[in-house]
Amino acid sequence: MAAERLVVIGGDAAGMSAASQARRLRGPDEMSIVAFERGHFTSYSACGVPYWVGGDVEGPDALVARTPEEHRDHAIDLRMRTEVTGIDVAGQRVRALDRESGESYWTGFDKLVIATGARPVRPELPGMDAPGVHGVQTLDDGQALLETLERTTGRRAVVVGAGYIGVEMAEAMLKRGYEVTVLNRGAQPMATLDPDMGRLVHEAMDGLGITTVNGASVTRILTGDDGRVSGVATDDATYPADVVVLGIGVEPETGLARAAGLPTGPNGGLLTDLTMRVRGHHNIWAGGDCVEVLDLVAGRTRHIALGTHANKHGQVIGSNVGGGYGTFPGVVGTAVSKVCDLEIGRTGLREKDAAAVGLRYVTATIESTGRAGYYPGARAMTVKMIAEYRTGRLLGVQIVGREGAAKRVDVAAVALTAGMTVEAMTALDLGYAPPFSPVWDPVLVAARKAVAVVRAAGSA
Amino acid sequence: MAAERLVVIGGDAAGMSAASQARRLRGPDEMSIVAFERGHFTSYSACGVPYWVGGDVEGPDALVARTPEEHRDHAIDLRMRTEVTGIDVAGQRVRALDRESGESYWTGFDKLVIATGARPVRPELPGMDAPGVHGVQTLDDGQALLETLERTTGRRAVVVGAGYIGVEMAEAMLKRGYEVTVLNRGAQPMATLDPDMGRLVHEAMDGLGITTVNGASVTRILTGDDGRVSGVATDDATYPADVVVLGIGVEPETGLARAAGLPTGPNGGLLTDLTMRVRGHHNIWAGGDCVEVLDLVAGRTRHIALGTHANKHGQVIGSNVGGGYGTFPGVVGTAVSKVCDLEIGRTGLREKDAAAVGLRYVTATIESTGRAGYYPGARAMTVKMIAEYRTGRLLGVQIVGREGAAKRVDVAAVALTAGMTVEAMTALDLGYAPPFSPVWDPVLVAARKAVAVVRAAGSA
Repeated sequence: MAAERLVVIGGDAAGMSAASQARRLRGPDEMSIVAFERGHFTSYSACGVPYWVGGDVEGPDALVARTPEEHRDHAIDLRMRTEVTGIDVAGQRVRALDRESGESYWTGFDKLVIATGARPVRPELPGMDAPGVHGVQTLDDGQALLETLERTTGRRAVVVGAGYIGVEMAEAMLKRGYEVTVLNRGAQPMATLDPDMGRLVHEAMDGLGITTVNGASVTRILTGDDGRVSGVATDDATYPADVVVLGIGVEPETGLARAAGLPTGPNGGLLTDLTMRVRGHHNIWAGGDCVEVLDLVAGRTRHIALGTHANKHGQVIGSNVGGGYGTFPGVVGTAVSKVCDLEIGRTGLREKDAAAVGLRYVTATIESTGRAGYYPGARAMTVKMIAEYRTGRLLGVQIVGREGAAKRVDVAAVALTAGMTVEAMTALDLGYAPPFSPVWDPVLVAARKAVAVVRAAGSA
Repeated sequence: MAAERLVVIGGDAAGMSAASQARRLRGPDEMSIVAFERGHFTSYSACGVPYWVGGDVEGPDALVARTPEEHRDHAIDLRMRTEVTGIDVAGQRVRALDRESGESYWTGFDKLVIATGARPVRPELPGMDAPGVHGVQTLDDGQALLETLERTTGRRAVVVGAGYIGVEMAEAMLKRGYEVTVLNRGAQPMATLDPDMGRLVHEAMDGLGITTVNGASVTRILTGDDGRVSGVATDDATYPADVVVLGIGVEPETGLARAAGLPTGPNGGLLTDLTMRVRGHHNIWAGGDCVEVLDLVAGRTRHIALGTHANKHGQVIGSNVGGGYGTFPGVVGTAVSKVCDLEIGRTGLREKDAAAVGLRYVTATIESTGRAGYYPGARAMTVKMIAEYRTGRLLGVQIVGREGAAKRVDVAAVALTAGMTVEAMTALDLGYAPPFSPVWDPVLVAARKAVAVVRAAGSA
């Protein structure tokens, strides 16, 4: 019997994890694996780009978990700088374009993995393509930005967007010695938080010397006589800029899949079953930033571009493709980030997410510290907890603080997965010692307050 | 109707939390509250003593969460330096001894809370009471040790015991400029870990300049001509010492309760129901270091002296005593500690605990880092996971590493509480960003390995 042929589209986390895991389960005699990557890198940490730009990390090599050569050593026929331009589902073949040679060809598959990732949202605004305007989605993007910074003598940076990429890039540019202005369309930075928690981020960014302008709708990128970027205009004002970084977020890269008739969801991502198999297609899997994932708290799919999910998807796909078994049950929406020493963590639903799916809820917000109050370095931490009205089921947690704040949401992430009530959470046996926590961990303090609020609301 | 009379024995975390919570629910017209404390302090953090001794924390005031005066302001009749010397269960009264005046008297109760805490294990060895030998269980103990250190010119400290108090005191004495030797009866320090993980602590302590002697059974405390301590003798050797710190652990202080006929368990602690009511006694509650707690993983009671449990007990007792409702469902055995920058976390069962309750298990140990490998400050972290044979249910996790290691056990603590399998844990949505975690959090890496081990063992 001829070897089964696996084709993988996309050479980053999801695609190459899938290829590697399939290879572990099936040797080259049983399965041939061809992977296509249109860029210059494989298996890299796009999440590391802000730290590379900020000078904390040497790049780009340090951000590559596995090079093309290492993949080839595992008998994966990896074709770099080669873009898949078409999928013929019925004919079980894909069309590839070698971007170096310009040659195009069809190649067949028995099984197909789509891991085409996400692309940065680039609003159609005048001047968007001017030199000095940069996205930071890929290692190639990071390299291009760093080359621009080397040539830029001015010291004014404008970051468009105040989500996690935006705030991380604000820190990076600050570290590079730039005067940083963040233009934020929303009412507060970090729209993944409720506005009351986003306000704390705003205040902290102010304290760090980062100017954040909320409610700023960018209308055009201004350019100078040399054609380079010179500023950013909003409805209300103009912000001079020597370099502009776009951190507006991403959307699933599914043009190819949609053209092939594969099903996408309300957020534009491919729809899969729990084994990451594309719905209705027995021999096609998809994972990473191009799919929608089930939000276990909201009970509907969302699009979340995050390396940790992409890696899990790749593992699951590789197991299933290789004849094993694995499922990806879904997410609860955990994310952590930082701006200098400010830490931000969130998991589960925001108030508006809860309302959007018809959940009635209560909230409780407390202030505590990450260490015992008397222990050196104890810093304030604000925890907001959202619980379902009456049942008291945990719906979400947001934390803003300093050291030890962000990863504390992991406790809530597990509690959400387990469907715990805030009352059950008050009894959680969390680690206590003065250097690590007050005697009541901040998450427990929030849970206790949430219990009281649930009780008061239920009897009202 | 006359006000109900609540008597509380013990003025630290459990007792005063209970008194305070009862007072919140019942005003002075409804309930009179009398609390007895034999020492000089109330509501203090004994866990903070090592940091006070080490000079990180100003003491003793900073370690007091609520002073006697503050309690009295809440209409609690707090009697300091007054020891309860007898409980007359049938007569509903206790006998109190004023240690200042020497007067003794009986006082009645409608409801009684026993929060007598724990006492340090002090082996009956020659020289044990010599000047320069100190326990560190209470603020009074801390004060006494600090007074000794001020008078001590020699620079050799011997710490007896290598549990968490022992290792924290080793750090404290190191910070004070002492040459520190830790005498450990067991095979490795931190007997709350399996020996393979304890060995990592031993190596790290070596690296910090702390000498740890394993298998050291202390036979006597040596004294000089002045009667002061001069060294510690074991079976094999003699260790010169200018000061000796006992960190051997504690046992429940239940002499009073046992004399009154109240039920104690196999570990010497009082036995309660889930509302912290002493078994078989409708009007007596007990909490804190003097009770046994249900280990939810082992399915039997244990004695764990830890401030965080004592505070929870106090809350639950106060709610129930005050006419509300609360339960303490049990613990999973979480503990965190540190020696300088080494962090240690553990939760659930050790191998020997699992074996002792008849559980068949597998183990998986992995090495990872607390941050993305390429991110500055990424340090090695070892995670050991114990899972039940066949079912794959999580039984325990131990972590030894640097920054971010200890509190990572909280994730496992919640998973234990929820009864998760290691397979379910591989899908946990834990926070990921390069400064906080590799793309696979170390706990997830351990879970993945544990899944493979469970599977291999099951098919063997």
